[in-house]
Amino acid sequence: MGLVMVQSFAQSSQEPKLLRTLRGQRQERPAIWLMRQAGRHLPEYRELRARHPSFMEFCYAPQAAAEATLQPLRRYPLDAAILFSDILVIPDALGVPVRFAEGEGPRLEPVTTAEELARLNPDGLETRLSPVYEALQLVRAALEPDQTMLGFAGAPWTLATYMVQGRGGDREMARKFGFQHPEILAAMLDLLAECVARHLAAQLDAGAHAVQIFESWAEDLSEEAFQDWVIGPIRKAVTRLRELRPGAAVIGFPRGASHRTGLFARETGVNCVGMDIGADLAAARAAVGPDVCLQGNLDPMCLVAGGPALDRATDRILAAAASGPHVFNLGHGVVPGTPIEHVSHLVGRVTGR
Amino acid sequence: MGLVMVQSFAQSSQEPKLLRTLRGQRQERPAIWLMRQAGRHLPEYRELRARHPSFMEFCYAPQAAAEATLQPLRRYPLDAAILFSDILVIPDALGVPVRFAEGEGPRLEPVTTAEELARLNPDGLETRLSPVYEALQLVRAALEPDQTMLGFAGAPWTLATYMVQGRGGDREMARKFGFQHPEILAAMLDLLAECVARHLAAQLDAGAHAVQIFESWAEDLSEEAFQDWVIGPIRKAVTRLRELRPGAAVIGFPRGASHRTGLFARETGVNCVGMDIGADLAAARAAVGPDVCLQGNLDPMCLVAGGPALDRATDRILAAAASGPHVFNLGHGVVPGTPIEHVSHLVGRVTGR
Repeated sequence: MGLVMVQSFAQSSQEPKLLRTLRGQRQERPAIWLMRQAGRHLPEYRELRARHPSFMEFCYAPQAAAEATLQPLRRYPLDAAILFSDILVIPDALGVPVRFAEGEGPRLEPVTTAEELARLNPDGLETRLSPVYEALQLVRAALEPDQTMLGFAGAPWTLATYMVQGRGGDREMARKFGFQHPEILAAMLDLLAECVARHLAAQLDAGAHAVQIFESWAEDLSEEAFQDWVIGPIRKAVTRLRELRPGAAVIGFPRGASHRTGLFARETGVNCVGMDIGADLAAARAAVGPDVCLQGNLDPMCLVAGGPALDRATDRILAAAASGPHVFNLGHGVVPGTPIEHVSHLVGRVTGR
Repeated sequence: MGLVMVQSFAQSSQEPKLLRTLRGQRQERPAIWLMRQAGRHLPEYRELRARHPSFMEFCYAPQAAAEATLQPLRRYPLDAAILFSDILVIPDALGVPVRFAEGEGPRLEPVTTAEELARLNPDGLETRLSPVYEALQLVRAALEPDQTMLGFAGAPWTLATYMVQGRGGDREMARKFGFQHPEILAAMLDLLAECVARHLAAQLDAGAHAVQIFESWAEDLSEEAFQDWVIGPIRKAVTRLRELRPGAAVIGFPRGASHRTGLFARETGVNCVGMDIGADLAAARAAVGPDVCLQGNLDPMCLVAGGPALDRATDRILAAAASGPHVFNLGHGVVPGTPIEHVSHLVGRVTGR
């Protein structure tokens, strides 16, 4: 028995720290990465981005996307790289062209009828998204052995809100659509769950150690809608992904649904649940039990503010993180105005480096 | 003992149904009102509103505000009227002029320094807001004995977000401000808690049976921020209100914080907690116990959609409402495009009328 435990530790210790945490191993100090750690808060990113007028073309340029992914790791001793890409590459690859209007967010041709849905073609998904996987390979080759490579995708409901509405925003149109046309939405979510699984499998093939599913719009859903539009489709995507890649480690981030953390963990089968800014870590730990990993949940505006409020909030999360496997992160993405020295300070406080 | 119970019932049955529910009496069928039941979904409102170019002047015109308040009660057999007004009358009365730009939402002169805060003057609050109380008196005089008159105010944190930012939106600036200048924000919240209590007391004097405190921006707050910015200030406002008006019945609506319903009910002392769209009613009932009233929480977009989804969602809430005192409501306000026949159908299904 003692021997088995030693072997098990020796084997798993060859995986990078953050991946081990996702698999349920509590660490001496939490692993850390930050949502949107790559991007506009870095001057070197703004310079790189300025050379690529179209945001989607930037995402599809392997060298540029790889470079953007690696930039924050040169500045901060983070435990993971997350591929620089966008959740909307899936609708884009399905034949719903996505464009980013300056200061306006993404715009898509809305998909709201069974006919429009039937025209979407998932066949060549991995071929059309091959530049994404190429970027991921470049990044993985540049990582240290203890750094974790993360891939990601948007969750089916989040992607569907953009496809139905043709844009982001308050999701009111998407919810109305779901109440009026449950069967069209269900078919769209099925298609997207399959695409999410395949896109994540291809990222694991290209070198990702684990993947995150971003359910950015899990808030404002009744129990029934949450079950039908969030839980069911994510469970399908995770189940299908593990058929394609047995043992795949998955983080699910249902933003705005921290009151359903236990349900979400149980029913989707993810290894780790991302906590949003407002989540209570102790309640979440009680809800998921000792083995499921939690991730989060510093307020990005606290990181902008810095000073004593940042240290206090960081230490509170570190204290709560001691109760089980935990990946330190923000509760939402790094915002553009975040001072670099605040990020350095935070990562130093968490890692001791 | 039997006699006492009969007397107690006889006495309380003289209060209108919705008020009795707030006081903890379970009803055979829930009382119902709808947030934003007055307003843009009604053609008679749009006609009335068109005659008053400035929205704030409209709110300060007693006849117009009273008429807007009464319009939905002529169409639907609702159990309550809620005064047509705006949460921003408090900053406006404090000397922070509010204007509504067409299609843009409210704009205020930001208050972000101790000096700017010191210039705000609460002395004449009730005098400056007397047209609001006059409107309320007009409405109350027109109500049936079993209809409840509701007053309301914005919660201190919600009002502070508008004052700090000079506008609504994502509250990122307000949170950053709170992390950087906790003492200025605390002073602002203290001032606002006092003003909220006085504004609500004046509405009770003018004929309101009960009041609702709208904490529209309770989401995205860490446990510490929620305690300092939401719980503390609302507790202060409720405590102060009950010093001024013993026994005042208060509904608190912390939108986006349904995972903290138990904490909110316990620590603020409200009679009733409003549930947002995403709240789980069974979990909320378990958290508050059998005596605290709950209110909510139909998705307004389900009301727009109508049909089988609306009936199913209505019946689910009615079933959950049987577990304790419950006021049927939406989880957010009626949206402008809501069909009148859907509202009639909903109110009919809940009231049996």
